[in-house]
Amino acid sequence: MTFKATVLTLYPDMFPGHLGHSLAGRALERGQWQIEPVQIRDFAADKHRSVDDTPAGGGAGMVLKPDVLAAAIDAVSTDDTRPRLLMSPRGLPLRQERVREIAAGDGVIIICGRFEGVDQRVIDARGLEEVSIGDYILSGGEPAALTLLDAVVRILPGVMGNDLSGVHESFEGGLLEHPHYTRPQVWEEREIPAVLTSGNHKAVEKWRHEQALALTKERRPDLLAKTSQVETK
Amino acid sequence: MTFKATVLTLYPDMFPGHLGHSLAGRALERGQWQIEPVQIRDFAADKHRSVDDTPAGGGAGMVLKPDVLAAAIDAVSTDDTRPRLLMSPRGLPLRQERVREIAAGDGVIIICGRFEGVDQRVIDARGLEEVSIGDYILSGGEPAALTLLDAVVRILPGVMGNDLSGVHESFEGGLLEHPHYTRPQVWEEREIPAVLTSGNHKAVEKWRHEQALALTKERRPDLLAKTSQVETK
Repeated sequence: MTFKATVLTLYPDMFPGHLGHSLAGRALERGQWQIEPVQIRDFAADKHRSVDDTPAGGGAGMVLKPDVLAAAIDAVSTDDTRPRLLMSPRGLPLRQERVREIAAGDGVIIICGRFEGVDQRVIDARGLEEVSIGDYILSGGEPAALTLLDAVVRILPGVMGNDLSGVHESFEGGLLEHPHYTRPQVWEEREIPAVLTSGNHKAVEKWRHEQALALTKERRPDLLAKTSQVETK
Repeated sequence: MTFKATVLTLYPDMFPGHLGHSLAGRALERGQWQIEPVQIRDFAADKHRSVDDTPAGGGAGMVLKPDVLAAAIDAVSTDDTRPRLLMSPRGLPLRQERVREIAAGDGVIIICGRFEGVDQRVIDARGLEEVSIGDYILSGGEPAALTLLDAVVRILPGVMGNDLSGVHESFEGGLLEHPHYTRPQVWEEREIPAVLTSGNHKAVEKWRHEQALALTKERRPDLLAKTSQVETK
């Protein structure tokens, strides 16, 4: 079964965007995944095709109407078991574990918010899972949807040429990744650390683990707190 | 002075991508910001134009060569005070504060990693600031660069039509945003909370703050730990 991403958006022209190039683009051409952008505005019932309205209680910005968005969701997800994600800074932060879960399924329905937000009732009534890709504010859900899909498509079966290159990566072992070096041996008077060219594989592994641990301690102590087994490895 | 983003990449065709549409796209057309993708491969010195090599110490994947990347950086950043970012899952997590700092400057140089990583010596020698947009693995730095630029461009002077819509947003006050509602008053037997249609502005503000606080406690207690003044507000 081909992984199918259905994206509800007011800007369908943004898709596939960067996913039409490189790794994801070749996989799309080969039919290893599909993307279907759906224009939310097509489900507006009034003659002005309006999709938003002023927020109840006042304030700046506009809110995506529950009836229009629900109609769009219902149209694409009859008898559908795919997760329904709403890209939103209010959501739980996306982690690689969730990316793997999504990639293991049949596909995903992604709703891209715009304006000030989405009516809470449609989030509740349609069981939308709010997902945040990070603690910053975007112009809308579209860049977040494209980012999430890049992470998912990359690990779909057969997409990565060299499956091994997915193994030693930041977060996969609960640590940030160790530093990398390649030729030339000396560059601008800087040498590759001697241990890496020693031929002693055990020493290389030890050095890399120490480097990864030190970098994680320095930059992301929060990751170490989550994976307490790492320290005793 | 126009904000200028120079992006070093092996996939210049990915730019401007979704930034060519909507808010960012119109601002680009109006000349409120510029984007200059630079092909890293153009700085490869050998006849095969190779940009990567095997990792010192062994292992899967390939590493971006220091000499080629440094030549590309040096070519675009003579007498340049713009920050030099390397999009990388090893970096410090991007936050809205850093987005605001970048948007307040003349522009940014963004280096998009691919393969297993970038030679550590060029990160050190050229003072690259490693930035992560989240705890997941992407196919390369390009989706991350596009996401970061979306966040930055959105808050450049004059880009947002209604400046007020940038005020009440998740993270801006250290809390996730309160729920939103709009017409119709009753939808699928679900009503807009009565306080929001009471006309009592003080009660609305109080309700919104309580909702934001409760949601943040539930989903993102880490944010509350960072902003201890929120509890006593």
